[in-house]
Amino acid sequence: MQKNMFFLKEQDLPTQWLNIKSVLPDKLPPLKEPNDDRGSRLDVIKKIRTKAMLDQDGTEEKWVDIPGEVLDKYIQVGRSTPLMRAIELEQYLDTPAKIYIKREDFLPTHSFKLNTAIPQAYYAKNENVKGLISETGAGQWGLGLSYACNMFNIEAIVFWVRISMEQKPFRKYWSEMLGGKIYPSPSKLTSSGRILLEKDPNSYGSLGTAIGDAISYTLENEEYKYASGSNLNHVLLHQSIIGLETYRQLEIAGDMPDTVIACCGGGSNLGGIMAPFIQAKVENPSNIKLLAVESNASPRLSKGEYKYDFSDPLGITPLTLSYTMGHDFMPPSSHVGGLRQHNGSPMVGMLRNKGILDAVSYDQEEIFEAGRLFTKLYGSIPAPETCHAIKATIDEALSAKVNNEKKTILMCFSGNGLLDLNGYIESSDKKR
Amino acid sequence: MQKNMFFLKEQDLPTQWLNIKSVLPDKLPPLKEPNDDRGSRLDVIKKIRTKAMLDQDGTEEKWVDIPGEVLDKYIQVGRSTPLMRAIELEQYLDTPAKIYIKREDFLPTHSFKLNTAIPQAYYAKNENVKGLISETGAGQWGLGLSYACNMFNIEAIVFWVRISMEQKPFRKYWSEMLGGKIYPSPSKLTSSGRILLEKDPNSYGSLGTAIGDAISYTLENEEYKYASGSNLNHVLLHQSIIGLETYRQLEIAGDMPDTVIACCGGGSNLGGIMAPFIQAKVENPSNIKLLAVESNASPRLSKGEYKYDFSDPLGITPLTLSYTMGHDFMPPSSHVGGLRQHNGSPMVGMLRNKGILDAVSYDQEEIFEAGRLFTKLYGSIPAPETCHAIKATIDEALSAKVNNEKKTILMCFSGNGLLDLNGYIESSDKKR
Repeated sequence: MQKNMFFLKEQDLPTQWLNIKSVLPDKLPPLKEPNDDRGSRLDVIKKIRTKAMLDQDGTEEKWVDIPGEVLDKYIQVGRSTPLMRAIELEQYLDTPAKIYIKREDFLPTHSFKLNTAIPQAYYAKNENVKGLISETGAGQWGLGLSYACNMFNIEAIVFWVRISMEQKPFRKYWSEMLGGKIYPSPSKLTSSGRILLEKDPNSYGSLGTAIGDAISYTLENEEYKYASGSNLNHVLLHQSIIGLETYRQLEIAGDMPDTVIACCGGGSNLGGIMAPFIQAKVENPSNIKLLAVESNASPRLSKGEYKYDFSDPLGITPLTLSYTMGHDFMPPSSHVGGLRQHNGSPMVGMLRNKGILDAVSYDQEEIFEAGRLFTKLYGSIPAPETCHAIKATIDEALSAKVNNEKKTILMCFSGNGLLDLNGYIESSDKKR
Repeated sequence: MQKNMFFLKEQDLPTQWLNIKSVLPDKLPPLKEPNDDRGSRLDVIKKIRTKAMLDQDGTEEKWVDIPGEVLDKYIQVGRSTPLMRAIELEQYLDTPAKIYIKREDFLPTHSFKLNTAIPQAYYAKNENVKGLISETGAGQWGLGLSYACNMFNIEAIVFWVRISMEQKPFRKYWSEMLGGKIYPSPSKLTSSGRILLEKDPNSYGSLGTAIGDAISYTLENEEYKYASGSNLNHVLLHQSIIGLETYRQLEIAGDMPDTVIACCGGGSNLGGIMAPFIQAKVENPSNIKLLAVESNASPRLSKGEYKYDFSDPLGITPLTLSYTMGHDFMPPSSHVGGLRQHNGSPMVGMLRNKGILDAVSYDQEEIFEAGRLFTKLYGSIPAPETCHAIKATIDEALSAKVNNEKKTILMCFSGNGLLDLNGYIESSDKKR
């Protein structure tokens, strides 16, 4: 009987998050104001965010305590998530490599997004905020935020890119069942949305219109605060729970990875699973390979420029230093939602710039093929974003086979794709 | 930090199934031939089933070894499934009762059906059968069977009630990703289907047409065997894994239930979770309450007759003694697929007839309301069938509150309802 699922006992769960910022090889460059006359972006950010999140973004502390109530909710939603030894995949590939997969899809909303949604809702509740406002693309973040806010009895208001919301009625309905108020963007509820709707009443919306709606709504309704689902330091801090758990699970399994793999949009599931391994690599420069997997639709870390840029297409956010395709870059619409960002987390950008993080990118067809193989072997359907990490894992395992290397590969399974099957279906239709 | 998820270590998993038949208060009445001139139904059954399943249906042994390869696959798919202490639900209901929920929805195809699909595929492979043929209504069984057959490299051919298949394109596509061959019923592939299509080329199909297609296909293609997803002794035998695991998990939790609750269609998730508690109650008559939850659309155990009847509407199966609404009974179409059977397992029938099993039935509106409450508290969406068990659990917990009783309630969470959201949506539309 081969042990293939590793859990942690409640008393062995991490009780502190690891601040990647504190272990970076250099000081993180500050956010900047753009050189224009549209007012201070830093002031807007300060105004719309909770105090706790602003503090956590700035902190240089290496370890940040996870509040007891947050830990209770982490346990309630099923932390620790399983670490799976993927024996069947190893056998299928006939590789000498060992493959470990951290299954964040086991969380009730089917993705890692809850890890930051829960503390953000907790801190907002503590600051007597009426509710959290955000935008969502594919909908996983909106779903996680709805559930987390519901747990702490505050409102969640989510502006969802209209075309994507209409394509995924089940995920919208699920978000509403969890108490979320979901509005299509552009929205009549905000001045930003109304201006856009006047220009084009049938606008499909974009991540840019949704960010505009969310920020605009928060500025117009002071009892609410704005929540971020990716990129920012505090989001990566919360996501470190993934890596910290995994590290302890690997200790139980008696293994440590030579290669750690995660898909990369904003960079938060990547920062999460890699946190302890980044620390190890920076403190004791080693051969461990940290690999970001991108979509060829938006290969920032692979082919973008390292420079100051806006995080949103309209330029309403401050400038951050990271890899970018340019804030007005529009990736092909056929590609998956979570990896279509034009830039990403400044921490991830620095790691890439310093050569600590490697990057690779893939086409849509090949990642769905990897996803189909995973489904055949394990029954569950990976989110399109997760398929990128699976494809890279397969390639690393096959290269170990060619070189007859006894590698240990670890990857983050960031989310379930049952509600994204349209992408799979379209991709198999194309192949016919 | 309150412990609320209980797992078993690999070495503590059950290695034998418990045969409920062997602990029944009486000998199980045999199947019978109907008194007509359409040939022997028992002969047909013998011909289309695998030898192992016929043997397991007949065995009087109390414990049946789980083959090592089946145990490995059980572990691969995530057994043990978690036993969850539902503290949030207890608090919401403000009840002195403790509530434990066995989460079979954590299996990769989202329901308990894999517990029997895996051994059935294993035994078929051992008998050099080319593939397993079956029918499916809501699609959970077809999905589980597709995955299990894929694990053992044999074919799965599933005849799916056409109207239901068309309503659930995602579940069909998922089954196909897992290697299943899915055909709408009535089907042109079989003589039975062709006769029906000649009469009505646009037939929606029914569970009856699908059973006809499946049996007909197996008779016409001797290298295949027919697989059952419910009702039969061997199916309940395999499902005993649910109850055996739960019993051990409850020992770890330091609790034993006063009330065990499961929804009841054919009776297999019910027989599964209740197996060790049936044994205990028969061997040491006690006050433990075993409660079957039915739909008012087909309340066999609550309001049906205990008599010999066919298990299919066309009368192609042998007669079994159980509770029945009559084999030509047609429940309202709006009600959920898994609980619409007109009769059920003869073992469950005997338990009910001897007063060992209680029964209660609910309307569709009230069960979806219970499901919505569960979703708000726990994020996951219960299958409509599972909502019945949740509704009964809530009612038992509220009655404990009225009577100030410190009860311990255990229920089986049989499956996830993410792909059944249309039912929820229709039910909320009705309320408007």
